[in-house]
Amino acid sequence: MRQDISPYDLRQAIRCGEFTGHTSGFAPGFVQCNLAILPADWASDFLRFCQANPKPCPLVGMSNSPGDTALPPLGDIDIRTDVPSYRVFRDGEFSEERTDLSALWRDDLVVFALGCSFSFEEALLADGLEVRNISQGVNVPMYRTDIDCTPAGPFKGKMVVSMRPFKAADAIRAVQICTRFPSVHGAPIHLGDPGLIGIDDLGVPDYGEAVSIADDELPVFWACGVTPQVALEAARPPLAITHSPGHMLVTDLRNSQLAVL
Amino acid sequence: MRQDISPYDLRQAIRCGEFTGHTSGFAPGFVQCNLAILPADWASDFLRFCQANPKPCPLVGMSNSPGDTALPPLGDIDIRTDVPSYRVFRDGEFSEERTDLSALWRDDLVVFALGCSFSFEEALLADGLEVRNISQGVNVPMYRTDIDCTPAGPFKGKMVVSMRPFKAADAIRAVQICTRFPSVHGAPIHLGDPGLIGIDDLGVPDYGEAVSIADDELPVFWACGVTPQVALEAARPPLAITHSPGHMLVTDLRNSQLAVL
Repeated sequence: MRQDISPYDLRQAIRCGEFTGHTSGFAPGFVQCNLAILPADWASDFLRFCQANPKPCPLVGMSNSPGDTALPPLGDIDIRTDVPSYRVFRDGEFSEERTDLSALWRDDLVVFALGCSFSFEEALLADGLEVRNISQGVNVPMYRTDIDCTPAGPFKGKMVVSMRPFKAADAIRAVQICTRFPSVHGAPIHLGDPGLIGIDDLGVPDYGEAVSIADDELPVFWACGVTPQVALEAARPPLAITHSPGHMLVTDLRNSQLAVL
Repeated sequence: MRQDISPYDLRQAIRCGEFTGHTSGFAPGFVQCNLAILPADWASDFLRFCQANPKPCPLVGMSNSPGDTALPPLGDIDIRTDVPSYRVFRDGEFSEERTDLSALWRDDLVVFALGCSFSFEEALLADGLEVRNISQGVNVPMYRTDIDCTPAGPFKGKMVVSMRPFKAADAIRAVQICTRFPSVHGAPIHLGDPGLIGIDDLGVPDYGEAVSIADDELPVFWACGVTPQVALEAARPPLAITHSPGHMLVTDLRNSQLAVL
């Protein structure tokens, strides 16, 4: 499939089962989202968790009412079929991966679409910065920190961060660029000494793959969308559904529309 | 003298010789400027130097014509008398300090007013950040780097930087705040390892005084207004006049008016 497909055409291909792969690099310029789906009686606490922790959990959209499968502001979406791969969790345990939620759908499910780092990586690349995980062709390295999220009901846990190394001047530029995009994690939350946020060894990420860091580079850390997934698993709702890593909800929103200035 | 005096009243007190001290902390909220005065046949190269090196040499205002002693957009100013102390350089060598330029004034002199770190320090403090040189009551430490300025005619040299230590999260916040103020040096130009910009020992500043840095802090470096003074001395014009360190031109511009957003 051509990468420069429109979001609508890509979702159509996903909906009919033609496309089940990673969405990274597809529909460039358009916002891709992390997905979380929860029963209504868990949803208001999760919404409060997102509101209280906007850097790891930047809410881009949610369904209007329990049971709704549409997300009108994000495009012509049927959330049961328009994400290439879903992960189903029961009582906080991973249960199975699926490419279609139709058989599971219930009229009490609430959909959350959260901003994802693809949007700010695109902005960094557009400015001429090198994004190491992209140039090395690996998943971005992610680490559990010792930073507590603000809890909301059963949702709590440590913040997970992604790391990209930069020379200092580029790190400063990255802060400027990402500040414009608060709904896709915004500015970094830390840079420099990883030990100060509870990371022992950059060579051993908790998720994703390690990348090389040169002597004249600083590790720069962004709040990461894995944070809400960890909080969600810890809360152990009877049913929770997320996207599979890298298999995002591709929306009709443009990355540039997320810029606050 | 009360610190919260108006810029106009402070300049009047300076003009009549009542006030000859440091201006730091006086007329809070208003822009204070570095000063450079040059003969017209040196001024256009110096103007190009400022234009080519906007981070160390952010031009806030200049006289309309050679010989003009006024700077209308910056207030009711007579530049011969309204700065508490001047330094006179002849052929690049420091000659004398004066509190009045009337006896020296010539109809070929051109006045440059350059942004100063007082403005962004005020913005950092207003955001709740601790500015170490202020809390320790010393002049900010400044260092010669190995970064070449873009030369313009006889004006050239290494960039001088000021340093303020911050925890990483505050350093990121400082980048965001200072980005709003490009005409007072703007965002930092470096953070972290001082050796990467040619600084051997933070404990031995080239100008100002050393400040303490905690283990969990990063040194953050801003382009500094001493840079144009160094370039000016190196160029060895027959006559050059600057303010004495800390004895700034206090203008009627508000710091908030310099914010680009």
